[in-house]
Amino acid sequence: MDLLDRLSDLLGPAQVLRGAEALAYGREWTGHYVWEPLAVVRPGTTEEVAAVLRLAHQTGTPVVPLGGNTGLNGGTFAPGALMLSLSRMNRIRDLNPAARTVVAEAGVVLETLQDLAAAQGLAFPLSFGAKGSAMVGGFLSTNAGGSNVLRYGSARALCLGLEVVLADGRIWHGLTGLHKDNTGYDLRDLIIGAEGTLGVITAAVLKLVPAPGAYATALVGLDSLSEALALLNTVQSGTGGAVEAFEFMPDRYMARLSRLKPALACPYAPRPVNLLIETATTVPGADPGAALEALLGAAMEAGQIAEAVIAQSASQRRKLWEMRESAAEITFTTPDIVDCDIALPLDRLENFLARMTPALAELDPGAEELVIAHLGDGNIHYTAYPSRPDPVLAQAIRARVSTEAVALGGSFSAEHGVGISKRATMAAHKDPVALQMMAAIKAALDPKGILNPGKVLP
Amino acid sequence: MDLLDRLSDLLGPAQVLRGAEALAYGREWTGHYVWEPLAVVRPGTTEEVAAVLRLAHQTGTPVVPLGGNTGLNGGTFAPGALMLSLSRMNRIRDLNPAARTVVAEAGVVLETLQDLAAAQGLAFPLSFGAKGSAMVGGFLSTNAGGSNVLRYGSARALCLGLEVVLADGRIWHGLTGLHKDNTGYDLRDLIIGAEGTLGVITAAVLKLVPAPGAYATALVGLDSLSEALALLNTVQSGTGGAVEAFEFMPDRYMARLSRLKPALACPYAPRPVNLLIETATTVPGADPGAALEALLGAAMEAGQIAEAVIAQSASQRRKLWEMRESAAEITFTTPDIVDCDIALPLDRLENFLARMTPALAELDPGAEELVIAHLGDGNIHYTAYPSRPDPVLAQAIRARVSTEAVALGGSFSAEHGVGISKRATMAAHKDPVALQMMAAIKAALDPKGILNPGKVLP
Ligand SMILES: Cc1cc2nc3c(=O)[nH]c(=O)nc-3n(C[C@H](O)[C@H](O)[C@H](O)COP(=O)(O)OP(=O)(O)OC[C@H]3O[C@@H](n4cnc5c(N)ncnc54)[C@H](O)[C@@H]3O)c2cc1C
Ligand SMILES: Cc1cc2nc3c(=O)[nH]c(=O)nc-3n(C[C@H](O)[C@H](O)[C@H](O)COP(=O)(O)OP(=O)(O)OC[C@H]3O[C@@H](n4cnc5c(N)ncnc54)[C@H](O)[C@@H]3O)c2cc1C
Repeated sequence: MDLLDRLSDLLGPAQVLRGAEALAYGREWTGHYVWEPLAVVRPGTTEEVAAVLRLAHQTGTPVVPLGGNTGLNGGTFAPGALMLSLSRMNRIRDLNPAARTVVAEAGVVLETLQDLAAAQGLAFPLSFGAKGSAMVGGFLSTNAGGSNVLRYGSARALCLGLEVVLADGRIWHGLTGLHKDNTGYDLRDLIIGAEGTLGVITAAVLKLVPAPGAYATALVGLDSLSEALALLNTVQSGTGGAVEAFEFMPDRYMARLSRLKPALACPYAPRPVNLLIETATTVPGADPGAALEALLGAAMEAGQIAEAVIAQSASQRRKLWEMRESAAEITFTTPDIVDCDIALPLDRLENFLARMTPALAELDPGAEELVIAHLGDGNIHYTAYPSRPDPVLAQAIRARVSTEAVALGGSFSAEHGVGISKRATMAAHKDPVALQMMAAIKAALDPKGILNPGKVLP
Repeated sequence: MDLLDRLSDLLGPAQVLRGAEALAYGREWTGHYVWEPLAVVRPGTTEEVAAVLRLAHQTGTPVVPLGGNTGLNGGTFAPGALMLSLSRMNRIRDLNPAARTVVAEAGVVLETLQDLAAAQGLAFPLSFGAKGSAMVGGFLSTNAGGSNVLRYGSARALCLGLEVVLADGRIWHGLTGLHKDNTGYDLRDLIIGAEGTLGVITAAVLKLVPAPGAYATALVGLDSLSEALALLNTVQSGTGGAVEAFEFMPDRYMARLSRLKPALACPYAPRPVNLLIETATTVPGADPGAALEALLGAAMEAGQIAEAVIAQSASQRRKLWEMRESAAEITFTTPDIVDCDIALPLDRLENFLARMTPALAELDPGAEELVIAHLGDGNIHYTAYPSRPDPVLAQAIRARVSTEAVALGGSFSAEHGVGISKRATMAAHKDPVALQMMAAIKAALDPKGILNPGKVLP
C-alpha cells in the first residue's frame, strides 16, 4: 500500500489532501515561493502526529510542519514533501488564570490566545500583523517577535513548556508550567526557533501576564535616531520600565502609508523620525497618559521632539496601531522586493542607515528603500524596491544588507528566522563552529534528515 | 612526555597544581563530596583553555570545569580528573553602559559584576548568598537563581551571548550583545545550565538593568501560605510588577536563626509565615516605601497580615537581607543533612508541605525539617535533619521529597541543578524521551565524553 493510502487509513481520507486541494497550500504569503507538495495531512491529536512521523521516518519521506503559513522566509517550502498541518490541533487543554498559564495546542491561532487571555483580565503579550493567522506552533518555531518584545520578550520568553514529536515519532512530554526547573539541558529553547527542523511542536505551556488597566499611546515626530534613543531612555526611566512598544516609522514610510491607505495618514507633517510609543500600567487608578504627557512635554520644551499626538480614546489608539500594523501590507506590494530583517546594537542603527542608503544607490541607482523598525529592540525591517526584477541584483542587495549589519555587530536575521531564504547568508556570516554544533545536533535528533529538509542549516 | 608535563609547558608550571596544592580544590562547600583530582590547571586565556582541551581530548582525559566551587550538587566532583579552573580569566573585556551590557570572562566573581554595574548607576540583578565567590562561568553553567528571579529571571535570562570552548578545543565565538537574533538553533541556552558537560564557558555578554533609585523592604508576618500568595498578587498589581523579592522564612527558620545568629533575630514574635518583601522603582522621585506601606496597611486592616516592619534605613534593609542570606550558613551545619531544592506550582506549595511533614515523620520520627523559599518563584529549599547519619535513610528522604514534588506537578531541581547528587532522581523522574534527547546531544558535542563525566545524565 502506498504511503498516502496508509496515511488515509490512519487519519481518515478527509485529513489527507492531495492534488488541487494540496496545491492550495503550496504558496508563501509573500509570493516568493510556490511549490507542489506531495500531500497535506491534518492529524487531530499528538498520537496521530506521532503515527504520521513514524510512517514518514520508516519511508524516508520529508515532512514540513505547517502552522498559519504566515512565515516570511520560505520555511514551509515543501516541493514533493508531506506538509503536516497542525490546524486541527487547536484545543486549549488548560487555562489557569491564578497561575497565569495556558496550555494550548500547536494549532491555536495567536489572536484566539489574546482574546482568551483578555477575557480573564490577563494578556498574552505577543503581537504582530499576522496575529489572525499565525499559530502557536508557528510562532514558537520561528521565535517570533513583534511590537511588545521590549517589555515581554520574544515568543521564547513566553513559553514555559513544550510537547514535541521527534522525527521518528517519539513523544517528549515537556509540558511543565514551572518558572524554575534546572533538570538537565534546555531542550525547550532548542526546539523553539528551530523552524521545524528538530521536532514538531504539538502543544505548549504559555505565560500570561496581568492585563494593563490603562495604556498611553503617542505618535511623536523628531529629527534623528540618536534623539529617539535618548527619548527611549527618558521614557523608560520616567515610567519605571513601562514602555510596551517603541516603533519607528520614517517619513518615507508615512508617505507610502498615506498613498496606499489615506485614512491612516500621519496627523502632522511627517518628520524624519516618527515614533509610536506605548506605555501601560497595572497599578489600579494610575494614569499613564498624564505621565507620558508630562515626559513628552518636557522633551518638547527641551527641543528634543518636534511633534506629539497622544491618543485620547481607544479608537484613536487603534488608529495609531493600524498605521504600524499595516507595515507588511504596504511593504509586500510586489514579490520583487528585497525584504531584510536585521538587528543592530542600538547605538549603531543610524550608522547602518548612513552606510546602506548610498550602498543601495551604488548597486541600483533607481532602487527605493523602505524602513520600519521595532526600534527599542534594534530591529530594522529594511526593504529595497529594485528598479528592475533581477535575481542577481536582488541577491547582491540582500548580501550587502547582511554584510553591513554584521560588520556593525548586528544580525542578518532578527526575528523572521532563516528558513530557505537566508541559508546562503548563514553560510557566509554565521560562526563556523556554531554551524558545526547545529549540524551535529540536527544529526543527533533527526539522523535521517526528514524534518523540514533544506531549511536553516546551510 | 606525560600529560601534566605537557600542560606545564603549555601554561607554565605555576598554573598546573599537583599533590597537596591540587587536593585543596578537592572538596565541595557542603562537605558532601571530597576527592583527589589528577591536577588543577589555571589557563589565562581562551586560547589556553582550547589548548588544554585539545590535549585532554587527544589523551581521553576527563576535564571538570571549575568556577567558585560554591555549587551544591557535587558538580565539581573530579576524582582522577583534570580540574580546569577559570579563576584567572577574570577580565572585563567590555563595559557599555549605554547598551547596558558587559562582556565578562568566566572567572569574574558575581559580586565584582554587581559592584561594577553599581558604579555606572546600573545593576546586575542576580544575587544569592555565595555572590562573593560564585563566578560567571559557574552561575551560567548552573543557571543559578536566587532572590531576584521573580523580577529579572534566572542567570539564563541575563545572558545575551557566550564564548565557549568545545570538548575537542574548537572555539565557538558567540559573544553577541543583540536582544533579537534568530540565526539558527539556540546554542546559548543549551550551554547555559549544562553544568560543564557540553562545553567550557570562557566569556559571556551579560545584561545590566537600570539601578532602582529607591527600594522598599519589609518583613511581614502572617498565618498561611495561601494568604501570602494573595498578598504577592496584591503587591504586584499595586506596584505595577515592581516586586524584586518575595522570600519565605517560616517560624522554624526564625527560631534557628535567633539561636545561631542572635543579632539577626526576628523583630517580632515570628508567625508561621514570615516574608521578606522588596519592591523598587527607577522612577525619579518616586517613593516605593510609601506605596508599600499603603498596601501593607490595607492588608493589615483587612486582617490579611499580622505583623509588618518596613526598613527605615539602608542598614535596616541590610539586616533584613542578612536574615535571608544566612540561609545556607544556618542550614548546612552538618554534612549529614538532606538538602532538597524543589519547585512547585504556586498553588501547590501548601499542599506539598502538608504532605511532606507527615511523610518525613513516618520515615524518621526523630527528624527535623527546615524550609526556606524563594516563594514568588514557587521554589522551596527543603532540608531534613535525620535523627541519625544513615545513607539509606537519607536516600529515602530525598526520594520522597522528589516524588511528592513531581506528583504535584513540580520539579526535583529548581535552581541548583543535577550534578552528581540528583542523577538517580533524573533516572526516576525525568521524561525518558527528554533523557534520550539529552544523551544524543551530549554524544554529538562531546563524543569521547571527557567533559565533566558522570554529571547531569543518569
Ligand atoms: C503580516 C505579517 C506580519 C508579520 N509580522 C511579524 C513580526 O512583527 N514579527 C515576527 O517575528 N514575525 C512576523 N511575521 C512572520 C512570523 O514569523 C509569522 O507570522 C509567524 O511566527 C509564523 O507563524 P505561522 O503559524 O504562520 O507559521 P508557518 O508560517 O506555518 O511556519 C513557520 C515555520 O515554522 C515551522 N512550523 C510551523 N508549525 C510548526 C510546529 N507545530 N512544529 C514545528 N515547526 C513548525 C514551519 O515549518 C516553518 O518553518 C509576520 C508575517 C506576516 C504575514
Ligand atoms: C551560600 C550559598 C548560597 C547559594 N544560594 C544559591 C541560590 O540562592 N540560588 C542558586 O541558584 N544557587 C545558589 N547556590 C549554589 C549556586 O549554584 C552556586 O553558588 C553558583 O551558581 C555556582 O557558581 P560557581 O562559580 O561557584 O560554580 P562551581 O561550583 O565552580 O561549578 C558549578 C558547576 O558549573 C560547572 N562550571 C563552572 N564553571 C564553568 C565554566 N566556565 N564552563 C562550564 N562549566 C562550568 C562546574 O563543572 C559545575 O558543574 C548557593 C551556594 C552557596 C554556597
